[in-house]
Amino acid sequence: MQLALIGAGRIGQVHAQAITAHPGVKLAAIADFRHEAAEALALTYSSQAMSTEAIFADETIDAVLIASSTPTHAEYFEQAAQSGKAVLCEKPIALDLARTREALDVLSSNPVTCALGFNRRHDPQFSALKQAVAEGRIGVLETLSIISRDPLPPPAEYVAASGGLFRDMMIHDFDMARWLLDEPITFVQATASCLIDPAIGEAGDVDTAMVTLTTASGRLCHINNSRRACYGYDQRIEAFGSGGMLQAQNETETRLRFTGEGGQVEEKPQWFFLERYAAAFAREIDDFVTAWQQQRAPLTSAHDGLEALRLAEAAERSLKEGRRIALDDIR
Amino acid sequence: MQLALIGAGRIGQVHAQAITAHPGVKLAAIADFRHEAAEALALTYSSQAMSTEAIFADETIDAVLIASSTPTHAEYFEQAAQSGKAVLCEKPIALDLARTREALDVLSSNPVTCALGFNRRHDPQFSALKQAVAEGRIGVLETLSIISRDPLPPPAEYVAASGGLFRDMMIHDFDMARWLLDEPITFVQATASCLIDPAIGEAGDVDTAMVTLTTASGRLCHINNSRRACYGYDQRIEAFGSGGMLQAQNETETRLRFTGEGGQVEEKPQWFFLERYAAAFAREIDDFVTAWQQQRAPLTSAHDGLEALRLAEAAERSLKEGRRIALDDIR
Amino acid sequence: MQLALIGAGRIGQVHAQAITAHPGVKLAAIADFRHEAAEALALTYSSQAMSTEAIFADETIDAVLIASSTPTHAEYFEQAAQSGKAVLCEKPIALDLARTREALDVLSSNPVTCALGFNRRHDPQFSALKQAVAEGRIGVLETLSIISRDPLPPPAEYVAASGGLFRDMMIHDFDMARWLLDEPITFVQATASCLIDPAIGEAGDVDTAMVTLTTASGRLCHINNSRRACYGYDQRIEAFGSGGMLQAQNETETRLRFTGEGGQVEEKPQWFFLERYAAAFAREIDDFVTAWQQQRAPLTSAHDGLEALRLAEAAERSLKEGRRIALDDIR
Amino acid sequence: MQLALIGAGRIGQVHAQAITAHPGVKLAAIADFRHEAAEALALTYSSQAMSTEAIFADETIDAVLIASSTPTHAEYFEQAAQSGKAVLCEKPIALDLARTREALDVLSSNPVTCALGFNRRHDPQFSALKQAVAEGRIGVLETLSIISRDPLPPPAEYVAASGGLFRDMMIHDFDMARWLLDEPITFVQATASCLIDPAIGEAGDVDTAMVTLTTASGRLCHINNSRRACYGYDQRIEAFGSGGMLQAQNETETRLRFTGEGGQVEEKPQWFFLERYAAAFAREIDDFVTAWQQQRAPLTSAHDGLEALRLAEAAERSLKEGRRIALDDIR
Repeated sequence: MQLALIGAGRIGQVHAQAITAHPGVKLAAIADFRHEAAEALALTYSSQAMSTEAIFADETIDAVLIASSTPTHAEYFEQAAQSGKAVLCEKPIALDLARTREALDVLSSNPVTCALGFNRRHDPQFSALKQAVAEGRIGVLETLSIISRDPLPPPAEYVAASGGLFRDMMIHDFDMARWLLDEPITFVQATASCLIDPAIGEAGDVDTAMVTLTTASGRLCHINNSRRACYGYDQRIEAFGSGGMLQAQNETETRLRFTGEGGQVEEKPQWFFLERYAAAFAREIDDFVTAWQQQRAPLTSAHDGLEALRLAEAAERSLKEGRRIALDDIR
Repeated sequence: MQLALIGAGRIGQVHAQAITAHPGVKLAAIADFRHEAAEALALTYSSQAMSTEAIFADETIDAVLIASSTPTHAEYFEQAAQSGKAVLCEKPIALDLARTREALDVLSSNPVTCALGFNRRHDPQFSALKQAVAEGRIGVLETLSIISRDPLPPPAEYVAASGGLFRDMMIHDFDMARWLLDEPITFVQATASCLIDPAIGEAGDVDTAMVTLTTASGRLCHINNSRRACYGYDQRIEAFGSGGMLQAQNETETRLRFTGEGGQVEEKPQWFFLERYAAAFAREIDDFVTAWQQQRAPLTSAHDGLEALRLAEAAERSLKEGRRIALDDIR
Repeated sequence: MQLALIGAGRIGQVHAQAITAHPGVKLAAIADFRHEAAEALALTYSSQAMSTEAIFADETIDAVLIASSTPTHAEYFEQAAQSGKAVLCEKPIALDLARTREALDVLSSNPVTCALGFNRRHDPQFSALKQAVAEGRIGVLETLSIISRDPLPPPAEYVAASGGLFRDMMIHDFDMARWLLDEPITFVQATASCLIDPAIGEAGDVDTAMVTLTTASGRLCHINNSRRACYGYDQRIEAFGSGGMLQAQNETETRLRFTGEGGQVEEKPQWFFLERYAAAFAREIDDFVTAWQQQRAPLTSAHDGLEALRLAEAAERSLKEGRRIALDDIR
Repeated sequence: MQLALIGAGRIGQVHAQAITAHPGVKLAAIADFRHEAAEALALTYSSQAMSTEAIFADETIDAVLIASSTPTHAEYFEQAAQSGKAVLCEKPIALDLARTREALDVLSSNPVTCALGFNRRHDPQFSALKQAVAEGRIGVLETLSIISRDPLPPPAEYVAASGGLFRDMMIHDFDMARWLLDEPITFVQATASCLIDPAIGEAGDVDTAMVTLTTASGRLCHINNSRRACYGYDQRIEAFGSGGMLQAQNETETRLRFTGEGGQVEEKPQWFFLERYAAAFAREIDDFVTAWQQQRAPLTSAHDGLEALRLAEAAERSLKEGRRIALDDIR
């Protein structure tokens, strides 16, 4: 697969590394609105800088990975589909439902292999949990708890353009919830506060949130977000059912343990997504390439992006109105 | 302290053992509406069976521990106060707020040392967590998660008279939340399902529930209840703050670990409250006796019972109405 | 059982508490060469101080627990047997084989219920390990590792009279090894150093030691001793076999875990034997009483004391001679 | 660095992968006495099959990695040095001291960058342990315990040519011991049995062994080997000192935990060295390349190979003679 990367920022660099390490993909080109950033990254990974126009016009390029800034996603997404290229798009396609639906319509008319950057589904531990639940290891799933805390809050200017915690951060957890609950979600209840950085509150956002989802059969799901955990990236899932419980625990760099006067000490969790999801990013590329080769659907789809966004909208409305929101009312 | 025990059932037996083991208390008498049950227990613990009338009339008896069936609590509670005896009353005083307030009024007019059976506050691990939070080990407390699952659901006939999951089971977690959050709770949101036993649903109750509390400063608290956990009593607390996280983990009988072809296996959690809270029951008696001797307030109060009940009422209303309930509206 | 306690020092106090808590035993008398120590302890536990002469002469006393200083053990042991009283004797009966054999001969001529204070066999975790090995959970036992470290080294004057690390400290581990290996030990190899306190070396002793035992079928056992572990009492056992591994891990006061910038921290191990073996001391009394009532042998015997001492002698000789010692050569 | 790989067997394949993944090394050629094996591996990794003669004659090749069968190591090692190529040689250089010394003499006369395949020194966890000990985290190191168990015993024919457990398996542990003890080893004591496979015993070897090392200052080190652990590769180290303890624990594929009626279950350890030391093999290549580029010594040296072999010889002699062996006596 000849793959072009659009976006040479932090997440673009993560993908460049994962693409290069994959034996079945060639990093054919890199685009960035700051051309010198594209050139620098191209130098590191033996690729070439190219404009997005040139990329979409180049018939030797099979696929694009969209890792540019959020407001540009939808347009590049549509151009990729229209030029017949497979597309792996970082989430979200857009911050609102209407624009997202437009992009999905373009995809319907121009069907190409399409995956969305919900990287956590590719994490080996979460994959193993999903598989164990599917195999009935815990009997019937009853409740799910997802804890997701970032090590540090983003700067206030980022927050202002982010679409808010539910669309920007909890969107990943909504996707995990949908994937693991494995049946329609019916109701959403949200509670949230600004406890960490007053500037986030002044920007109209929250930094600490708890959301409860209910499914058609009555399963309950708790999502727990904080923009700051001093000990690092806190990424845990607990699935509880009639036959037991599965817990995905935080991972550490090594298993070294020190015992001294102060107690028994193990390492703190890996610091952030670059470390924690390094394997997931590699597997995400592999799933995308393999799906394209085998003409099968990738593990994630553009539709998953739309559905996660609907949950974010519902959570936002629930927070404002102080009541549970029926997901059917979010159109 | 000459202490009389009212109630010779399961929880009464637990208390009889804890009383006997305490060097500062004498189990002076045992009452039960089934007189032979009182006699049998008295035989085991070298005490004597007595009627409640005789107990309240006996001036040598300093204190009563009320461990009879729930509907009798309020009346014995009032009689204890009126006869000037210290009282340790199993929760709840009553299942409704009005009756509870009446009992508290009687206590106001007849002040005696009074403690309520929120045994979990006396658990060594939860005590250590409380103290660490109070000492600022995690900086400013931001969120709290309380998981509380019973090993087995109660029989449907018990459920019918229990007052419902929020009053009967989550009441303990409401008390823990109040104690640990350490500031006024303002809003309550509840979600719940009947997933385990249809008979519980037919009795108008739920068996799986998630509640979110919000405090005056914006702290968030998640409570997670299930009437059944096949692996035993699941009793965990996680306090998260600006400076870190404290986790009270499940306890096991021993720390023995087996490693074999199937993995690395440690024991499942202790089965139920008799095992898990054995130390808490002993410390509860000690706190009661010491408070009485030193004329100080015990760690728990009748007021704590009233406040936990208000939270249960709010949760029930929230579940019915599908919206968050301001605690101020629960009178 | 009417039980008299000889010795009101630290270990005597531990036993006084365990005796009092047992419903089937009455602490009938306490003796100590410092009569006021016996009186003080008798006051605390509602008993009476008495001379050893009076104890052995008192026909209402069924049993004695010998917890006096080591040089007095053998004589009291013999007097107990000769006066027909059951005896629970703190280890060792004597520091040399000859004197120990004399005492055993007296016991042979005057058979009474007799147990030796190898308290660790009664520890719930080690009991569970023993039982799991016996039930074949790890298939055929192949190797055993016993780690035993004290929190602090004893004062040099104690060391001088102690009989040395192998007789004073590792004796417990020799007994555990014999109990768990469950077949004749054939060879002993010892290595040791003085690394902690030069005064111990000047007293002719070591403070750090590793011993390897070999059994008749070729099982290997590693024993690892240190007189000082800054984090507390380190008491671990690992049994490895054809079907897996069992590990007895250190125990902590609670399971509270803190996660912060410095890592994930759990409590250090319980500080010393009073905390770590509190349950074992209680079960030791119970086994002794029950054995006496049922006329069966207790879990430990005077013979176990002799055999552990032979291993200590072999280790000492191996250390001196720099070669493995056949246990058959220790008479 | 243009690197040629000699040996296309299992360990050769591991190295081929690690070499390819390193941005600073080109896998220039692959040799194997089965030429088709070299060709197959060359195809997979875009390299070319070549004879060893051609490799040593090719001036564009900077370095060789010797991963052929043990009896060929010494000769290739010498040819590499004589042709001025850097050499990374799988351990051992030879199975006897005399032949090893000959190879070292050739190296002395033809100094090139030279590393030995003691891959475990490159393991991230053991590296972190080494660094923490060096930084004084546990105060003064007093004892060391190294547990090393393979998942399955090798076939008897392999055993016959292996040089025996001490040279073939424990050699890695001897190297770890030397590296971590960080001072001269003075005495060696060995005990061993054949408990797993009688064919190993018939081949004159053992499959279960315990060795104790003593250092100049009196530090003690326990090494514990078994040829079979049904739960996988058991690779643990415990360093104990005046200020605490460091434990390198087994690693697992994920941190997923299941809790059910049978207990709390985590994964068994990674199965064997390919999984457990994947990161170590990658870091080993990196250290070799970097050392060559910077003209510094690699982390391991040919001398380390010689010294580990002396410890193996001493252990073998100790086992035969039933006494401790002074390392000075092994020449």
